[in-house]
Amino acid sequence: MSDFLATLAAQLPHGTLRPANPGELDDPRGRHEGQALAVARPASTLEVSTILKACNQASVSVVPLGGGTGLVLGQVAHDGPAPLVISLERMTAIRAIYPSENVIVAEAGAILADVQNAAQGVDRLFPLSLAAEGSARIGGNLATNAGGLNVLRYGNARDLCLGLEAVLPDGSIWNGLKRLRKDNTGYDLKNLMIGSEGTLGIITAAALRLFPQPTGEAAAFFVVPDPQAALDLLALARAQLGETISAFELISGVGLDFLTETLPDLRQPFAVRPEWCVLIDVGTSGALDPFVMLEDLFTAAFTAGLASDGVIAKSGSERAEFWAVRESIPEANRRIGSISSHDISVPLSTIPAFIPEGIAALRELGDVRVNCFGHLGDGNLHYNVFPAKGRDRREYEDIRAEVKRTVHDLVHAYDGSVSAEHGIGRLKVEDLERYQDPVKLAAMRAIKKALDPNGIMNPGAVLRI
Amino acid sequence: MSDFLATLAAQLPHGTLRPANPGELDDPRGRHEGQALAVARPASTLEVSTILKACNQASVSVVPLGGGTGLVLGQVAHDGPAPLVISLERMTAIRAIYPSENVIVAEAGAILADVQNAAQGVDRLFPLSLAAEGSARIGGNLATNAGGLNVLRYGNARDLCLGLEAVLPDGSIWNGLKRLRKDNTGYDLKNLMIGSEGTLGIITAAALRLFPQPTGEAAAFFVVPDPQAALDLLALARAQLGETISAFELISGVGLDFLTETLPDLRQPFAVRPEWCVLIDVGTSGALDPFVMLEDLFTAAFTAGLASDGVIAKSGSERAEFWAVRESIPEANRRIGSISSHDISVPLSTIPAFIPEGIAALRELGDVRVNCFGHLGDGNLHYNVFPAKGRDRREYEDIRAEVKRTVHDLVHAYDGSVSAEHGIGRLKVEDLERYQDPVKLAAMRAIKKALDPNGIMNPGAVLRI
Repeated sequence: MSDFLATLAAQLPHGTLRPANPGELDDPRGRHEGQALAVARPASTLEVSTILKACNQASVSVVPLGGGTGLVLGQVAHDGPAPLVISLERMTAIRAIYPSENVIVAEAGAILADVQNAAQGVDRLFPLSLAAEGSARIGGNLATNAGGLNVLRYGNARDLCLGLEAVLPDGSIWNGLKRLRKDNTGYDLKNLMIGSEGTLGIITAAALRLFPQPTGEAAAFFVVPDPQAALDLLALARAQLGETISAFELISGVGLDFLTETLPDLRQPFAVRPEWCVLIDVGTSGALDPFVMLEDLFTAAFTAGLASDGVIAKSGSERAEFWAVRESIPEANRRIGSISSHDISVPLSTIPAFIPEGIAALRELGDVRVNCFGHLGDGNLHYNVFPAKGRDRREYEDIRAEVKRTVHDLVHAYDGSVSAEHGIGRLKVEDLERYQDPVKLAAMRAIKKALDPNGIMNPGAVLRI
Repeated sequence: MSDFLATLAAQLPHGTLRPANPGELDDPRGRHEGQALAVARPASTLEVSTILKACNQASVSVVPLGGGTGLVLGQVAHDGPAPLVISLERMTAIRAIYPSENVIVAEAGAILADVQNAAQGVDRLFPLSLAAEGSARIGGNLATNAGGLNVLRYGNARDLCLGLEAVLPDGSIWNGLKRLRKDNTGYDLKNLMIGSEGTLGIITAAALRLFPQPTGEAAAFFVVPDPQAALDLLALARAQLGETISAFELISGVGLDFLTETLPDLRQPFAVRPEWCVLIDVGTSGALDPFVMLEDLFTAAFTAGLASDGVIAKSGSERAEFWAVRESIPEANRRIGSISSHDISVPLSTIPAFIPEGIAALRELGDVRVNCFGHLGDGNLHYNVFPAKGRDRREYEDIRAEVKRTVHDLVHAYDGSVSAEHGIGRLKVEDLERYQDPVKLAAMRAIKKALDPNGIMNPGAVLRI
């Protein structure tokens, strides 16, 4: 053990520091094993402070670790000097719940599903919902401004956070754990920390917004002729159903084919596989009947030529089956094996032009399939590129970089984002440098330098500096 | 004209610079006349850039000016060297509207009411709404993160902004005018600029969120026994009406007395003046009938003992009359003349304890009346202190500072905010220093220094530095 670690260990309860176990710091897609000088597991905000102060004084770099489910290598320091990994796994307390305020205060290491369950326990909804919710930790969700399935109605992690407690790189503790809806007292440090991916400090706790549980929920698949119709259907749904629409997901025929190919036992909603369909989820309050609302929506959509077929879930279990179709698409994608995956957003009205233009440009590069699906209501598509049927991703290794570049250049031309919800991490640093406004990049560097002058926080993530 | 101004004038179209007219830079409450070296009226983002670059090089300080309606002297440099005032009054264009995306792009100098009207012109709603909307400019609304009447449903200015164009202190232009719902590419510079009150740069344009126009609107006054019942009524209303509640405003008997005293011709909702009442506004979509919803809410509230009387507006004009009552309270307050006014928020569940505890503490100081009213759903109260009936505010001059201190200390003890929506400006700099978390304050100073190293932007506002 180095002198630094020995000195630090002496300041902390026994067992706070331990060596990393092999494989423990792997990226979920298995691309890189992270390095670690050691893994620190602080049990309190004060211990996080002690650790950061020591690291800052010794210029030892730090990588914060939540559930390790991030997809852009933000939690994986795979080159440079080995950092101290600070895992929040012991700080999992729900510190308080205020049902009458619709607020929950959770420590950063709390598993997202546990936060959801704690809310449900007082008849409230914490609406952040994503595939990794069983292992992702709320601190990581905030550090990466996680999105997921219900952003359309409830916003992303940023919108769900009222206040933060965080430890800054010098070890000072910011107590910003307010549970206020309105507070205009100075710069928005909260939103600066959210989405900074552990490069400006470590979030240790958060005050989060809760919502009433819907009294009625229903889901439907509608077959739409094309993405433009899907957008028009969304506008119609908003006009008829207002803010009761919790999710509005686009699914392509390619995605359904992938399910047939890789998960043949999964029950699909339509006997004849459509070119495009949408999954609509509705949650109501009071006496509103979500089934009737979806039936009325279908009638109006059918009349307007926006939907040719539709199925409405008749029970909670059928609704869960519908969602299983949507949520199995990433698994099907993994089994097919993508050449390159892209988490993009473009302005809503440009989606119908963007989707085919991208496909045409990619077909120039090779015989590929595009599975385009996702959060249409947010303009956020997972636009993933796959081998032709019967071929393997390894055959496409030589065009991989060009595939990514083609998609991202087109997104940029459409004034979109090359990382709608996954963040930058270490995977997209070059993309950030290529596509981000240079004035914003310069401001980001100045802020990083101001708040972390020794550059200890998650070096190599977001900014190369 | 100084050398600096002469050199600057030569770089700009004729007439861009002019002397300030007497009275032009007055604070809306008439407390301070602002100073100005000159008033610059750029017509484009490029001209803003030219001006800031020159000021930064010459270390000439700058005060950005929108509609001048801010209540905390953020736009009024009343001591120190006279700054160059940069008025956005010529940059008023609506650059684009995208109805199918629910997005409008407006220049910073656009009057808030004009943005609302432009949205209405394409059958959309821009929900930011506040008393000064006829003269406030959207750039100022964003710089101060304005709140207003519809925050409960639609959020504050921050929540309504998708993207910004801004000129940083060195004159560099940040083109962040994205119209994306999701974009996780780097630090949240947008939210850092929003609410920084012109101390980090000048917002020149914004992409703003629009919403469908409600198809039905209705308003009601309910008499409630006390603030706790008002909060319980809000929870009941949310359970029954979901997200259709656009506003939920608390009004005290003191406020109604003030109306009777100063605006006797204004029609009040109840023959017998209640101790507390709430104004509820509902906007629906589809076939929902907001009148029936409010009737049902009243029945449930009456049964639960949360409301003893109620009136529902039967027409649009009656709804407007109801709102006139609420919106006349600030005018009544002005006519009575406050000893000290406070724009505060406390955690929602603590409001019922806070209100009487504050009144009791204030009565220890002197014979005062408290008019407590405002945005209950947001936990944001205007908690304003007035002379006893028949007495004048000037008689209270000696306890004024103590009144403010008493309210703000109590707010702080309740973990609240001493500026829920008005901001800090120059009026509340000492409050910020007294009540803000010291670690956040230090981070704010570091950010200010990093982005505005010459300290030219709105010096004296927010931070003393």
